[in-house]
Amino acid sequence: MIRHSVILKLKNTISLEEKQAFFDAVDTLAKIPDVQKFEVLKQTSQKNKFEYGISMEFDTQEQYDIYSNHPNHIHFIQNFWINNVEDFLEIDYENIG
Amino acid sequence: MIRHSVILKLKNTISLEEKQAFFDAVDTLAKIPDVQKFEVLKQTSQKNKFEYGISMEFDTQEQYDIYSNHPNHIHFIQNFWINNVEDFLEIDYENIG
Repeated sequence: MIRHSVILKLKNTISLEEKQAFFDAVDTLAKIPDVQKFEVLKQTSQKNKFEYGISMEFDTQEQYDIYSNHPNHIHFIQNFWINNVEDFLEIDYENIG
Repeated sequence: MIRHSVILKLKNTISLEEKQAFFDAVDTLAKIPDVQKFEVLKQTSQKNKFEYGISMEFDTQEQYDIYSNHPNHIHFIQNFWINNVEDFLEIDYENIG
């Protein structure tokens, strides 16, 4: 199991419509093959600056790599992520063996 | 649902025995009342500096507060966390909506 996640803060300058379009685009990532347990979450701790989290799981590193290089993922990064995200942190978890 | 998690990096100076004792102490947190889906995970992304993650869920903020103030949690922080952890980030997730 690989749990791939990212916590993010959106730019303050984006409109409500741009925010809605961003999250609609996020939802399309769930349809990329082998993505499991896809979640979009609100980040509520006051001890960091991030506002949202996106989390998903893959069975294997190969599936994760296919996702990363999938045209729909690349399209999302180029057309939505770069324009809307102010800061983020990627976190990947695996079970301790 | 509140998913409370922390990603952490241990101090480089701790011994294998101290590391084992730290994770044994982490495991005791799972027994605090109302802690659900307790997980200890390896952090594998090269895009951040953290090495491990601890994740758990609560049904309510009240349960989360009781956990935070529980004597076993406070004992863990004072006797294991402060001595062994070099850096960390707390992340709390709730469902959007």
